[in-house]
Amino acid sequence: MKPYAEMTKEELLQERETLKAQYKKFQALELSLNMSRGKPCIEQLDLSMGMMDALNSHEDLNCADGTDCRNYGVLDGIEEAKQLIGDMMENHPDNIIIYGNSSLNVMYDTVSRAETHGIMGNVPWCQLKKVKFLCPVPGYDRHFAISEYFGHEMIPVPMTEKGPDMDMIEELVSSDEAIKGIWCVPKYSNPQGYSYSDDTVRRFARLKPAAPDFRIFWDNAYGMHHLYDNDQDYLIEILAECKRAGNPDLVYKFSSTSKITFPGSGIASLATSHNNLEDIRNQLRIQTIGHDKVNQLRHVRFFGNIHGMVEHMRKHADILRPKFEALDEIFTKELGGLGIGTWTKPKGGYFMSFDAMDGCAKDIVDRAKKAGVVLTGAGATWPHGHDPHDSNIRIAPTYPPLEDLKTAARLFALCVKLSSIRRLLEDLA
Amino acid sequence: MKPYAEMTKEELLQERETLKAQYKKFQALELSLNMSRGKPCIEQLDLSMGMMDALNSHEDLNCADGTDCRNYGVLDGIEEAKQLIGDMMENHPDNIIIYGNSSLNVMYDTVSRAETHGIMGNVPWCQLKKVKFLCPVPGYDRHFAISEYFGHEMIPVPMTEKGPDMDMIEELVSSDEAIKGIWCVPKYSNPQGYSYSDDTVRRFARLKPAAPDFRIFWDNAYGMHHLYDNDQDYLIEILAECKRAGNPDLVYKFSSTSKITFPGSGIASLATSHNNLEDIRNQLRIQTIGHDKVNQLRHVRFFGNIHGMVEHMRKHADILRPKFEALDEIFTKELGGLGIGTWTKPKGGYFMSFDAMDGCAKDIVDRAKKAGVVLTGAGATWPHGHDPHDSNIRIAPTYPPLEDLKTAARLFALCVKLSSIRRLLEDLA
Repeated sequence: MKPYAEMTKEELLQERETLKAQYKKFQALELSLNMSRGKPCIEQLDLSMGMMDALNSHEDLNCADGTDCRNYGVLDGIEEAKQLIGDMMENHPDNIIIYGNSSLNVMYDTVSRAETHGIMGNVPWCQLKKVKFLCPVPGYDRHFAISEYFGHEMIPVPMTEKGPDMDMIEELVSSDEAIKGIWCVPKYSNPQGYSYSDDTVRRFARLKPAAPDFRIFWDNAYGMHHLYDNDQDYLIEILAECKRAGNPDLVYKFSSTSKITFPGSGIASLATSHNNLEDIRNQLRIQTIGHDKVNQLRHVRFFGNIHGMVEHMRKHADILRPKFEALDEIFTKELGGLGIGTWTKPKGGYFMSFDAMDGCAKDIVDRAKKAGVVLTGAGATWPHGHDPHDSNIRIAPTYPPLEDLKTAARLFALCVKLSSIRRLLEDLA
Repeated sequence: MKPYAEMTKEELLQERETLKAQYKKFQALELSLNMSRGKPCIEQLDLSMGMMDALNSHEDLNCADGTDCRNYGVLDGIEEAKQLIGDMMENHPDNIIIYGNSSLNVMYDTVSRAETHGIMGNVPWCQLKKVKFLCPVPGYDRHFAISEYFGHEMIPVPMTEKGPDMDMIEELVSSDEAIKGIWCVPKYSNPQGYSYSDDTVRRFARLKPAAPDFRIFWDNAYGMHHLYDNDQDYLIEILAECKRAGNPDLVYKFSSTSKITFPGSGIASLATSHNNLEDIRNQLRIQTIGHDKVNQLRHVRFFGNIHGMVEHMRKHADILRPKFEALDEIFTKELGGLGIGTWTKPKGGYFMSFDAMDGCAKDIVDRAKKAGVVLTGAGATWPHGHDPHDSNIRIAPTYPPLEDLKTAARLFALCVKLSSIRRLLEDLA
């Protein structure tokens, strides 16, 4: 089939009739599928059920150093967990704090602490007239929601396959003291699945911010989440790179096991410089006596070591790979050559990014919803939920079973076509 | 023996020689005991080991309503946990949010949210010149530490056996808009083990604060922590009382299972009015996707229901009762009639409060430490760690084994005597 843009009005109208009939068939299926969030599917969750047996009443719950994990104490995590998560994050255990179950919570707290107490002796952000955050777009809605909640002015920075536009970032960060942070998902980015290039990471580490309390919020959520054993993206380790660049305190790096074991019952972590850690611990010891050490020990006993975690992630990949591949196959078959949409082909992570024709995203999401498939809201990948092009849609293929996903993908492609025709007919009118 | 105050200088000097010899014997024991914090002992922790078997890989981890506890979702806690914790807190499940592992963390977050975003539409506290908190004294050091961290002016309010001085509280709260909160441990208070009288609770519920965003921070940490089956303190339920008094939004009530199951691996909770809950959820959904539902389910499956928890608390009581009674016996035997100290006789909770002669507390703690027994730092029960009388010491009898505790109690009594003589000799000089 030829590109839609080359079709005459009559051809478009005819195509629309065919598509409408197909859409009605989908509606008759009474689908009820949810592809809105990056949730692991049941088969993935089942992979970690062994963790429920990792501790039992006959085992002692002591650390190697004798710490009784059942009792109070140990503010920043047991040594075994720091070792395991250190290996996962590619950081020294001494640079790590193990938190509770949610890295989003750690990010929120990090911003909140900066608001009330400032970073390393700088003025608390709540006392400033304006705090600005850079937001690579399309990006992660929950990051933007934190900035929105704290009233930050969010500046969109375009994403490329190599990461966000570094020319723009360098210029902005070095010239505007009100810019205090940037939200990054550097590996298998949300939603594109892009990984920052070596050059991008090196330039991040070499930023010369006007604000002494500018920090990179480096959310390495998908560091272990490859789809292919022999075709993985590689990311330069940012802490080490910042240290080499003479910028040791520039970055807060976040991670968690949420999509490794159980979302909501994993362990979250932060890696950063010793100066930042000292700053953070001064607050952390006021906020809590310590996080859940028993759950830390449970993770350590379940995985044994980083090799156990890598093997575990292979099993996740075996479940997710066919889903990502099915999406790409169906989109290629249904949309290839039509010139009405592009999509990414991630080698890992949890999402795929779809760019429709301008002005079509909301309509596509609405049409899919009316046929029983809930997608991430259009606009969600932009600050304040406002995509100025109304073109980007985040696709989350992990949760539905493979056959349902295929159905949803076909419906999605159909909705893209219908929306595009509506758009093209408007242009012709 | 007659009261020390009635002794002559010679009698005091002679007594001191006897005591010094005893002290040397204690030093020769090379003790290493820690009574500084309210930590459960190993036997108490062992009571909850069955919880490690409450979930295993063969059981499904679904709630009654079908929620898969392993996945994302459920911002404010699974229904079963709300039911159990509701029964524990004497509140309706709908008034409850289940959090992570630490009620201290919930209190910190509650203050932090008020600082950055204000309470129910009021001005964020960080924008105010002055925020004041009322601090019943002696009180809980970690409460005061939160206020100190946020720069609150802390106003000490004297405690009585019936709770804090309500005349003073009523006057202050109704006249000063800068007073935004009060820290309360209403049942088996930290450190005295006092429980607020019916009259005290009723007066709390009927406060007429000048500040619309004044809140009572009601830390009901020891609601279930009785020592005696048939001699328990009773506390009027504050939410219901506030509602009756036409002050439904006046209180945040905190609790946790930290000293029921495992400290650090329990579940924390907050109960409050629907208006407050709505205010809190608006922030909570930015801060996290949800807390650890698997651990919530683990607690529910372990206890079954509130009766299971009550039975469980009886076992804790059986371990702790002899410790509290031993302390009282030894203090009575060693210090009775000497007029150099008074102590409380709690019927529950985790602490006992000791009042020495003015100017003796630090010295007593120092002497105990030099003989191998670490007590809570003198002054810790006052804001900024400053006890103007230098007389109050919190005693935490739960952690050491009973025999060690007895030894420590005898050493403590000895240190009280030595300090008092030093003090009396100074007065005579």
